[in-house]
Amino acid sequence: MGWEEEASSTVCPVAKSLAAVGDRWTLLIMRELSMGVRRFDDIQAQLGASSYLLSTRLKRLEQDGIIERRLYREKPERYEYYATPKGRALDPILLMLRAWGMQYCTHTPDEEPAVHLTHRPTGEVVDEHWRIPENEWPFSLDSLDARISDRFEAEREAKRRNFRKGGR
Amino acid sequence: MGWEEEASSTVCPVAKSLAAVGDRWTLLIMRELSMGVRRFDDIQAQLGASSYLLSTRLKRLEQDGIIERRLYREKPERYEYYATPKGRALDPILLMLRAWGMQYCTHTPDEEPAVHLTHRPTGEVVDEHWRIPENEWPFSLDSLDARISDRFEAEREAKRRNFRKGGR
Repeated sequence: MGWEEEASSTVCPVAKSLAAVGDRWTLLIMRELSMGVRRFDDIQAQLGASSYLLSTRLKRLEQDGIIERRLYREKPERYEYYATPKGRALDPILLMLRAWGMQYCTHTPDEEPAVHLTHRPTGEVVDEHWRIPENEWPFSLDSLDARISDRFEAEREAKRRNFRKGGR
Repeated sequence: MGWEEEASSTVCPVAKSLAAVGDRWTLLIMRELSMGVRRFDDIQAQLGASSYLLSTRLKRLEQDGIIERRLYREKPERYEYYATPKGRALDPILLMLRAWGMQYCTHTPDEEPAVHLTHRPTGEVVDEHWRIPENEWPFSLDSLDARISDRFEAEREAKRRNFRKGGR
């Protein structure tokens, strides 16, 4: 499946935005990390990227100081990936790609968000019109509560299933 | 020249950011349009993309409603490219990629910005710490005054010269 088709088959507005304006991989890796997905296979399942492509991107991101890896198993050696401060500084961009995708790339404007975000300090719903308060910079997605929608969770679970079957 | 080398040879922090996290083409096209560069050859000279790649991207952007073209010459038919409102809604993302690049991808933190930006209503310098005021959304780069630095202008002029020589 080409990326364009992939993007139009997802409910995630970040993926939609990136299909139009993004790299398709790098910021999606950062999205996964921000959702707490840390392991190679789990990231790969969501991105549908080849092992080669994903490991190339992860190495590049590590070299650029955007992510870091931490050993979680010795034999065989396995790593988890985390955003560095430089990587977390991309959070506002992820959030704006989300807003742009919600505003311009969603077919039905009243459809449920892929991920429900709430601004923890104020309880405000973080939709496409929400703005980062001026006194909250540097802004991090950690200040938002996230609840994944059933639709997006189903999409993600289908990808995990499909990946385990080797059906990519 | 590969894109990575290209990015490290430019002073433009947007280009640097995109080499690390972006599509490398789409948002750079939008950057060119925001700088008033409207014609195919002029965009191509700055991006160093092949005609085929650039025309593919421009068509895709037009199909996605992000840019529009306007006829400026009948024989032969020639067009100028403009961001639509959907395209201008990417302005905050361009600005944040710029800020991120200025903060994290610049070798010397006190180096001159590639483009000096000033917030017209307040006269504030728009550097990597400047934030879009909450009452100025939807934000457009049109509310900023831009003055290109000598270094970036020299880089751009060299690209134009090189392109005219066919030396891409």
